[in-house]
Amino acid sequence: MEERKRLNYNVHREILDEEELDEIAKKSDSKPSLCDKMAKSMRTSGPQVKNCLLGTIPVVLWLPRYSFREDALGDLVSGISVGIMQLPQGMAYALLACVPPVFGLYSSFYPVLIYFIFGTSKHISVGTYAVMSVMIGGVTERLAPDSNFMIWDNETNSSKLDIFSRDDERVRVAAAVTFLSGMFQILLGLVQFGFVVTYLSEPLVRGYTTGAAIHVIVSQLKYAFGINPVRHSGPLSMIYTVLEVCYLLPKTNVGTLVVSIVAIVGLVLAKELNALLSKKLPVPLPVELFAIIIATIISWQVNLDAKYGVEVVGGIPSGLQPPVVPDVSLFGQVIGDAFALAVVGYGIAISLGRIFALKYGYKVDSNQELIALGLSNSIGGFFQCFAISCSMSRSLVQESSGGRTQVAGALSAVVILFITLWIGRLFEDLPKAVLAAIVLVNLHGMMKQFLDIPALWRSNKIDMLIWIATFILTLLLNPDLGLAAAIVFSMLTVIFRTQLPKYSLLGQVGDTDIYKPMEDYDQVKQVPGILIFRSSATLYFANAEMYQEALRKKSGIDITKLLSAKKKLEAKRKRHEKKNAKKAKKELQRNGVNLPPSSEQEEKHLEQQIYVSIVEVEDEPDPSLPRAIVLDLSPVNFLDTVGVKTIQSIRRDYGEIGIKTVLAGCQTGVVENLQTGGFFNDKVTKSCLFTTVHDAVLHCRTRGQAQDELQELEATHF
Amino acid sequence: MEERKRLNYNVHREILDEEELDEIAKKSDSKPSLCDKMAKSMRTSGPQVKNCLLGTIPVVLWLPRYSFREDALGDLVSGISVGIMQLPQGMAYALLACVPPVFGLYSSFYPVLIYFIFGTSKHISVGTYAVMSVMIGGVTERLAPDSNFMIWDNETNSSKLDIFSRDDERVRVAAAVTFLSGMFQILLGLVQFGFVVTYLSEPLVRGYTTGAAIHVIVSQLKYAFGINPVRHSGPLSMIYTVLEVCYLLPKTNVGTLVVSIVAIVGLVLAKELNALLSKKLPVPLPVELFAIIIATIISWQVNLDAKYGVEVVGGIPSGLQPPVVPDVSLFGQVIGDAFALAVVGYGIAISLGRIFALKYGYKVDSNQELIALGLSNSIGGFFQCFAISCSMSRSLVQESSGGRTQVAGALSAVVILFITLWIGRLFEDLPKAVLAAIVLVNLHGMMKQFLDIPALWRSNKIDMLIWIATFILTLLLNPDLGLAAAIVFSMLTVIFRTQLPKYSLLGQVGDTDIYKPMEDYDQVKQVPGILIFRSSATLYFANAEMYQEALRKKSGIDITKLLSAKKKLEAKRKRHEKKNAKKAKKELQRNGVNLPPSSEQEEKHLEQQIYVSIVEVEDEPDPSLPRAIVLDLSPVNFLDTVGVKTIQSIRRDYGEIGIKTVLAGCQTGVVENLQTGGFFNDKVTKSCLFTTVHDAVLHCRTRGQAQDELQELEATHF
Repeated sequence: MEERKRLNYNVHREILDEEELDEIAKKSDSKPSLCDKMAKSMRTSGPQVKNCLLGTIPVVLWLPRYSFREDALGDLVSGISVGIMQLPQGMAYALLACVPPVFGLYSSFYPVLIYFIFGTSKHISVGTYAVMSVMIGGVTERLAPDSNFMIWDNETNSSKLDIFSRDDERVRVAAAVTFLSGMFQILLGLVQFGFVVTYLSEPLVRGYTTGAAIHVIVSQLKYAFGINPVRHSGPLSMIYTVLEVCYLLPKTNVGTLVVSIVAIVGLVLAKELNALLSKKLPVPLPVELFAIIIATIISWQVNLDAKYGVEVVGGIPSGLQPPVVPDVSLFGQVIGDAFALAVVGYGIAISLGRIFALKYGYKVDSNQELIALGLSNSIGGFFQCFAISCSMSRSLVQESSGGRTQVAGALSAVVILFITLWIGRLFEDLPKAVLAAIVLVNLHGMMKQFLDIPALWRSNKIDMLIWIATFILTLLLNPDLGLAAAIVFSMLTVIFRTQLPKYSLLGQVGDTDIYKPMEDYDQVKQVPGILIFRSSATLYFANAEMYQEALRKKSGIDITKLLSAKKKLEAKRKRHEKKNAKKAKKELQRNGVNLPPSSEQEEKHLEQQIYVSIVEVEDEPDPSLPRAIVLDLSPVNFLDTVGVKTIQSIRRDYGEIGIKTVLAGCQTGVVENLQTGGFFNDKVTKSCLFTTVHDAVLHCRTRGQAQDELQELEATHF
Repeated sequence: MEERKRLNYNVHREILDEEELDEIAKKSDSKPSLCDKMAKSMRTSGPQVKNCLLGTIPVVLWLPRYSFREDALGDLVSGISVGIMQLPQGMAYALLACVPPVFGLYSSFYPVLIYFIFGTSKHISVGTYAVMSVMIGGVTERLAPDSNFMIWDNETNSSKLDIFSRDDERVRVAAAVTFLSGMFQILLGLVQFGFVVTYLSEPLVRGYTTGAAIHVIVSQLKYAFGINPVRHSGPLSMIYTVLEVCYLLPKTNVGTLVVSIVAIVGLVLAKELNALLSKKLPVPLPVELFAIIIATIISWQVNLDAKYGVEVVGGIPSGLQPPVVPDVSLFGQVIGDAFALAVVGYGIAISLGRIFALKYGYKVDSNQELIALGLSNSIGGFFQCFAISCSMSRSLVQESSGGRTQVAGALSAVVILFITLWIGRLFEDLPKAVLAAIVLVNLHGMMKQFLDIPALWRSNKIDMLIWIATFILTLLLNPDLGLAAAIVFSMLTVIFRTQLPKYSLLGQVGDTDIYKPMEDYDQVKQVPGILIFRSSATLYFANAEMYQEALRKKSGIDITKLLSAKKKLEAKRKRHEKKNAKKAKKELQRNGVNLPPSSEQEEKHLEQQIYVSIVEVEDEPDPSLPRAIVLDLSPVNFLDTVGVKTIQSIRRDYGEIGIKTVLAGCQTGVVENLQTGGFFNDKVTKSCLFTTVHDAVLHCRTRGQAQDELQELEATHF
């Protein structure tokens, strides 16, 4: 470092204020009018229209260029691996959504095929997703609770749950909310609303998924323990559910618990093995598939259901079902949930898609993704699917096992179709506890996200705050409302950040043109007679008052006091003058001739002289006060009317006690804001704006020197 | 302008990057720890504590210094004028609050006295306020609707309204909500929450009061027409009420309508007269007082109530009533309204207080104001007052008629006390329509605020948007919810503004060190080989992606394409090398001795040479690409993790295709953000940060020249 050759910075130019700069640099005034802008944006040529239309069906663009030699093998391996993963996940997530497992298989088939046609990401594995499923579970349990389907059993003289009609109703609800969320996504995509994803910052998404994972875990506890807690909904429902589960723990079904524990331990061990062997195996072992196959065989042989009361999956219809029009009458009750699902599903898919796009150097079109997901969901809604997004674990497998294009996804759908048509019904004896175990073990990775907290504590405390707030809000308010609250919170942090700016007085670094905050640097000295003030944030309504207050504190000038003192003195002077004029008039009237001044008169005269001298001293600038204030506005992004008024009032107030205020470092937009805000008039022109702080300081200093010289000149004259 | 002497700006120094600057200016590392800060803020000396305690009862500070000679006369005249105004206003606003008129008089007495003791503003007239009253009216009518108080009249065989118990209940509700809102205000004051008022920007307050005024007008229509519309509540209730009033218009009571029209016309004419005579009269004529006196006399003589069915004020109890403990059981139902009342009341009072404080050069303590208003309301709640704030019209009269201190307010309370005790019951025959007319005419001034719209259109379109949005939200969602929505909206505008920044490439102005956006100036030229990019806004999660996109568009460098091309080439090269190595090995194995290269081999060799040359060309910087990118971060207020990652990825991506990225103009806080965000490492040091854009440009240029020279040197050597 030391031996680095230091280069020179030499500048010779005139001091430039904004006015002179505009002249020299020839500011172009011609602004394109709104009409021109509109016309420009409307003007689209033929090929553009064609591209736009083709862009909505990306498959026609990339499929003809599909290279069998390069991509086919990878896609095939990857497609089969992902399909095998989809089977247990689809069934498990169907439990989360509170619908029969086969609908999880449907959801792993139809939407995936549709995404293949319309999607732009090559690596994400679209399909069932834990967080979305648990959100749907909330809706289905709310609108079709067990209590609505109790029928009186005459034989046992007790009420019994009519599972079939309950499940039918739940499937109807899930399909309706899925269809509606798809329509929302299409709508948002058509109005080019893809940018909303920018509000989902990384800390927010990670805090949110962690919070949602806790919800998922809690919702699976009942299957793992084999208990039947009452369903709670609304804010804080998770806490009630946990309490209820704790209360019901003594009623645990031991058989179910044993199955859960064995499944969890087995899966964790198998996954560890997978991780160890990851370098040797081209494709990870489908441990989940093994788990459900083994569990089904054991359950079937031992007859777990009948002997130990372990709940099993039950009847799985084989084959596909004809499409059903979603129940429009339910839309009113699920509109809020549908919107939340639309946003969450999109947010998760686009974040993952972006990560892969960045890695492989292609582009994911956020609006087209919205439309693709929307079509997947809304068409899926007809085939009784529940809302899908993409799963991180499956996407990672799809990528790592060699998947290169969307074809992998299509192949995985084919695998699922095959299973649904012919093999599905073999899993009728699978214990639900095993599916719960699969969900719980899959979420194990999510828990690692808690490590974000210490990492963010070191790097950015406010982002840590967003993470924690999102997590807690999601826990307490459930995934739908929690997301909205978290987004509002993360936006408020932006406001808060601009509300707690750092105000500093700047000083000159050595003899250079660089000005730095005096409290941050030791070798920075204040320019005599000139205060340079900067706020680290934009000046607008939420911090305008603080700006004035900080300027007062930092400068040590009690402007209110000085102004009122000045006002009082002026009033006094006026009264005095009036009085004197009256007295003089009276005196003239009293003694027509000139008498030598009486002692009383002499006294008055003296008093008046003293008074005048006081007033004069007051009118002259106080030597303890600075000559000028430079407001460095370079960090200001925009000025609203309150901001303009604040600068105006600073100029006016300090101007009244003889301190000139100049502005430095305004961006073009800020100058425009000042202009339209009425800051400039006959007296205040752009000549009080300077490009750099140094220009402003030099201007004020030379002006001050000129004054001093003038005073000296006057002094020598007398 | 032309003859102005141009001053010179000469700077000679070394090019300074952040590292060198820290060295020269001696950056102080010692940051005060959190503990130190806490300890510092806790350390308060004895006199400070005393001042703080005295500060909560300002009257003990200013009353001993009260100057009878200077202030007494003005305060007396002003106090009587305001008291006379309070009488009709108090009664009229009681109608708005749906309680009997005498409670308006109480509300003009107790709270005013308490504010005299605790308030810090000398000129605002605390007391009943139209917007607050209409908000209370919403609560009282919701919790004590007419329908709850219908009793069966055996004589007429129809149900009859029990007005007395209804009014009792309404007064109880009003007192409860008032007490609670006072407690909220005290609480907010104690936790120093006065700063929230900064969210109430001027456009918001003006749009809000205009919207609230429309609510007031609508609520008065029933008195003006003498009809009885059904009460609506909740969002959009105003529209329903207007429709209901239109529907009921045929049922108008003609007598009431005549009284209203006469009163309105009379009041408007009298006010115009007042305005004309304003210069000649020391105190404006109390036209409202005249109106109610005249109306009472006419009503009493003509017997309007009995003959024409004109509703009159009715029984006014004379004398004061003992305090009543507010009904705690109602608190749960009014907590939201109480909070809205607390915020609105405080917002209005502090905005007005500030205007006068600025005019007369004293300070209004926002937290003390909260406590003063809170005590006024909570103690007022015991005496069955309804929530108060301050009225603009009365405050203007208090100031213009010579009021100089809070004593004027206290005197006006004495006037009200006098009226309540002895004269009040004379007004029993006053038609309610006259009170409605007073309210309507008083709001006439509010309607002038619509002129803000064209003014804001000219000065600041976003502030105009805030005005209009606040107005519409207040109309549609009622004053309480509307205020919350408007505040959220005005905060979102800040986000939107930073989301629509202006991205520009900067160019050099002549031969100076000044860089300006190239699209704004004609005589600004790009520095060859160096791109200077600036966003007008802070870089954070909501616009980070746009930043990258804008950089790509403005620079015309398709980084994704270049990167993937590079990756492909590298992969090809690797394959090629592998193949060649294999082949070479094979060849060596095949023919142990050196043979002259076969034609096939020759071909291969040639191919390889061509390939290597392609690769080399690719590795070398493309001459069409710039050498370096300078990101001007001077408008950045802070960086969050997303912002830091964005800059990191720009550095990495462009670095891979041979373009160096340096940063310029970072504030101290931004450098800290970069540091904690892990931007710096072994390779990336602070030497890529420069204080000014010119430093960065000079650095890149000299570096480029050095490279060119090196290449030239190499070229001559070979």
